[in-house]
Amino acid sequence: MSDAHLKEDAIGSELLFKGNFLHAQRDTVRLPDGHTATREYVIHPGAVVVVPLLDDGRVVLERQFRYPIGHVMIEFPAGKLDAGEAPRVCGQRELLEETGYSAREWAYAGVMHLAVAYSTEIIHLYFARGLSLGERQLDQGEFLDVFTATRAELAGWCRDGSVTDAKTLTCALWLQNVLSGAWPLDWQTAAGADGPR
Amino acid sequence: MSDAHLKEDAIGSELLFKGNFLHAQRDTVRLPDGHTATREYVIHPGAVVVVPLLDDGRVVLERQFRYPIGHVMIEFPAGKLDAGEAPRVCGQRELLEETGYSAREWAYAGVMHLAVAYSTEIIHLYFARGLSLGERQLDQGEFLDVFTATRAELAGWCRDGSVTDAKTLTCALWLQNVLSGAWPLDWQTAAGADGPR
Repeated sequence: MSDAHLKEDAIGSELLFKGNFLHAQRDTVRLPDGHTATREYVIHPGAVVVVPLLDDGRVVLERQFRYPIGHVMIEFPAGKLDAGEAPRVCGQRELLEETGYSAREWAYAGVMHLAVAYSTEIIHLYFARGLSLGERQLDQGEFLDVFTATRAELAGWCRDGSVTDAKTLTCALWLQNVLSGAWPLDWQTAAGADGPR
Repeated sequence: MSDAHLKEDAIGSELLFKGNFLHAQRDTVRLPDGHTATREYVIHPGAVVVVPLLDDGRVVLERQFRYPIGHVMIEFPAGKLDAGEAPRVCGQRELLEETGYSAREWAYAGVMHLAVAYSTEIIHLYFARGLSLGERQLDQGEFLDVFTATRAELAGWCRDGSVTDAKTLTCALWLQNVLSGAWPLDWQTAAGADGPR
């Protein structure tokens, strides 16, 4: 199916602002009917989220205060890509920094887009297993708790509103289908080279 | 458990910019260790996403070009809250405007937060059933295709990367557990009063 009747083409672009963290742009686009409109959106470097599976079937989670939301949230470990960093390397780095865990095996699951109307953000989703615990190395100014939960506890929290972070809810969809056998993963040792399809 | 060791408190706030669509703010916060930091984030009015269930078990979906992502995406019908609008009223309005469907029964599922590091956005998730098709009323400058799919097709697309929108993936988690009977919903007629818990 052609998407010409839906597609918007850029005809101009200006910087909206560049903050310490946020970087936003306003583009002028030609709509499918020939009219023009503006699109304002955040430029994001991309991120990685990791579902760490312990040998006893529990998962590793974090509790972190999220200022825009105004409360502590339950999330899987995640972090932004450094410039030029491969997603799996980012996942390994963030998992170690935030939780202290290293994983013997990694599996790439897929990607998600977070706020499709106003952000370029893409998140690469990995599973990790064969975990061993070392020392975590939080960034300065980073405060978060690490804890573990059973898959039933996590599912209950997704249902009752204790988990509302969309990337973590998406991880829960994957986890449920991976553990049921419906969505098998292609596991690779940590030394092996791989990446997003 | 106290969250004092995680919590950040606002000590100042400034407007970063106010565009046609995006509105962003930079707050100065006191970290748990007493240091200060800045938090830049988008102020969002909130939104609603609807999972419309047809009597034959199919679901109603949309294909829409998302400029920040640069391609057409498969999504459940969704839209932003108007000022003062109740979430279910927004869901009914957006479903009708975008797809032409009205629903006899509605069920509130839960909420999700989209980009917890840099947006206040909350999305209220509703299920709708008892659907009847009328005329859709797209906003000017809005272009999207409406189509239907089986739950197996949707699950396959979530797995193979055809669906990457996080709110739609979160809806898929709910759909799977609602249809399996694991997460029963409290259905109400369209005329009944309800809303987020």
